[in-house]
Amino acid sequence: MARIVLKFGGTSVGDIERIKNVARRVKREADAGHGVAVVVSAMAGVTNQLVGLVNQISPLHDAREYDAVVATGEQVTVGLLALALQELGVSARSWTGWQIPVVTDNVHGKARIQRIDTAELERRFDDGQVAVVAGFQGVGPDNRITTLGRGGSDTSAVALAAALGAERCDIYTDVDGVYTCDPRIVAKARKLDKITYEEMLEMASLGAKVLQTRSVEMAMNHRVRVQVLSSFADAPGTLVVDEDEIVEKEVVSGIAYSRDEAKITLTKVADRPGVAAAIFGPLADFGVNVDMIVQNVSDDGKSTDLTFTVTRADLDRAIKVLKENRNGLDFKELRPDAGVVKVSVIGVGMRSHAGVALTMFKTLADKGINIQVISTSEIKISVLINEQYLELALRALHTAYGLDAA
Amino acid sequence: MARIVLKFGGTSVGDIERIKNVARRVKREADAGHGVAVVVSAMAGVTNQLVGLVNQISPLHDAREYDAVVATGEQVTVGLLALALQELGVSARSWTGWQIPVVTDNVHGKARIQRIDTAELERRFDDGQVAVVAGFQGVGPDNRITTLGRGGSDTSAVALAAALGAERCDIYTDVDGVYTCDPRIVAKARKLDKITYEEMLEMASLGAKVLQTRSVEMAMNHRVRVQVLSSFADAPGTLVVDEDEIVEKEVVSGIAYSRDEAKITLTKVADRPGVAAAIFGPLADFGVNVDMIVQNVSDDGKSTDLTFTVTRADLDRAIKVLKENRNGLDFKELRPDAGVVKVSVIGVGMRSHAGVALTMFKTLADKGINIQVISTSEIKISVLINEQYLELALRALHTAYGLDAA
Repeated sequence: MARIVLKFGGTSVGDIERIKNVARRVKREADAGHGVAVVVSAMAGVTNQLVGLVNQISPLHDAREYDAVVATGEQVTVGLLALALQELGVSARSWTGWQIPVVTDNVHGKARIQRIDTAELERRFDDGQVAVVAGFQGVGPDNRITTLGRGGSDTSAVALAAALGAERCDIYTDVDGVYTCDPRIVAKARKLDKITYEEMLEMASLGAKVLQTRSVEMAMNHRVRVQVLSSFADAPGTLVVDEDEIVEKEVVSGIAYSRDEAKITLTKVADRPGVAAAIFGPLADFGVNVDMIVQNVSDDGKSTDLTFTVTRADLDRAIKVLKENRNGLDFKELRPDAGVVKVSVIGVGMRSHAGVALTMFKTLADKGINIQVISTSEIKISVLINEQYLELALRALHTAYGLDAA
Repeated sequence: MARIVLKFGGTSVGDIERIKNVARRVKREADAGHGVAVVVSAMAGVTNQLVGLVNQISPLHDAREYDAVVATGEQVTVGLLALALQELGVSARSWTGWQIPVVTDNVHGKARIQRIDTAELERRFDDGQVAVVAGFQGVGPDNRITTLGRGGSDTSAVALAAALGAERCDIYTDVDGVYTCDPRIVAKARKLDKITYEEMLEMASLGAKVLQTRSVEMAMNHRVRVQVLSSFADAPGTLVVDEDEIVEKEVVSGIAYSRDEAKITLTKVADRPGVAAAIFGPLADFGVNVDMIVQNVSDDGKSTDLTFTVTRADLDRAIKVLKENRNGLDFKELRPDAGVVKVSVIGVGMRSHAGVALTMFKTLADKGINIQVISTSEIKISVLINEQYLELALRALHTAYGLDAA
């Protein structure tokens, strides 16, 4: 008996009619004779409402109690979906995190799953019973309810699929798959049939909000075949799989972007060992994450310009930290710039193809777009550009890499 | 260290401000050095909302899933109240039914508590930690969430007080105590300082909705001192205690009533053995509860009239059952009457005082009120009268038994 995990997000279970719609989809898989586990989120809006109550009582709340309150959202959905399935004649039972149990560490509010005991679920699969599992939650070592952090239901689903050795893990969402680029900006963007874990990871971490980054990492580590598809349309979505499964690899699979970027340039920084540590040490101490870093070759052998990026929310803090921690750190000027965006070309095919970066640089140059910072990884080239060129850059690159829909 | 259990109903925790108010009351008890457990209901309206969702999905729902959904209401409140206490500097932790655990049978929707393991709570009392406990819920033998039925939080509180050997169990509600009669009808009604378990039980079962009947039974069985008081006023309430604790017993403690009564009279019923079984057997089979029963002495030795009462909601069903199950049951006429009410005089002092019933009958006769059915127990005399005389009867009896406030 093949085991299948299905996951439905908050929008997909947003009201009674949608829950009934989900039940019909689940019934189809159950009728096909599969062992089916369905992971669901809280009904859209419910988690925010619960978080609102917590914050009204206690802005700096105890994370244990926060978890106890917000985990109720998913508990309501699993009960309702189990009932909706029963109404369709499908044997179904709801499961909270502690009932299965989904054992996590005790980092409340962003716990990590350590172990899922699937014995009872598997026994019930054999009796034809569907397991309706509360996403986003688990139980800690001291028997307290834990939650996995926002978007954690994706992680719940993938972890459960891994524990069950599931044939696939279908993540139903409000988009119908992973696109070559954001279709709201690039009209010619195409839905991808398949994408590798590595590419999906780069997409996810760049803000393409289809899947939570942690869930993709987990899928990659456990080789869980994840499918992203729409709960509102009846069409295949995008399969996230191992590289080996993709025969005809595109050189570039997609173009991602992030608006949440700010740039800081320090001019005339002394060009000697220990300077980078003097800059990035204090930033790390104050919780500022630094992304791209570029240091130019020094003109005179004595000083250089250093540029790096942080999220826009961290910009003010980064500036404050740098100004207040100048012992041993010498620079002439601090130039902040919140008007930048990051554009990334992603594809595992890059590994075996030369000239991918060149195409990017040339395409942007042809459009008169200045590249401020460049950063590369094995399967990604990212550039920082002025935000006013974002749409132009995305469309030009999409065409240049032959991604446009016919 | 004295242990105290406090219970707050849905109205008392109806919004954020009220939850903060409850936290201040709890803090006072904690500051007094007591080991404090607080039992709370769902915020007012929440349980009805959850039941509404369940009924929309599945009118004839699986009680296991019903319980999983509706138990979330209390889970939200305990988390919020624990946070509110922490904000006041009080060490506090929330507890669901399964976490303690409150072990129940598996009669979902109206489970009975079998055992409460208080070891961990007691250990934490010693560390000065307040336990914030979800009322209305427990965990069944198969690790599923159970609920105790509407109003079950009172039962949770009393059961916890019994398990902890608590010095008292304070039930905070939206009334400030138990009255000699409904103050909305009898302006001269007085709040009682003390009432016996037996009297409270009669009051509760007659629809004085201060305490759930089961919670009073449990308090009586385990000799838990229960206090009913208002969460909005700062005054002592009514203590529900053992008869021994009341030195000066009133002959009559209170006058209760129930509007939810309907009467059925069967005329010319054969006066022979087995007739009562032929009537009440089928009613019981169809789930109709019969309350008062009166059979007149037969005139002719051959037939008699038989009168009994059911709840108004059951009247139509009772009529249908009697008409459709006439094998062996012979009567001339079936006379239904939904226009009746039951008035009861209650007091443990009756046991040692003669003439209590006579005062009742005489008082009603003086006002021209006809008594249709009489039923008595050791500490209660109930009469059925036409509903139009309800207010008149209550006021007259209240005066006649010397209950009027000075």
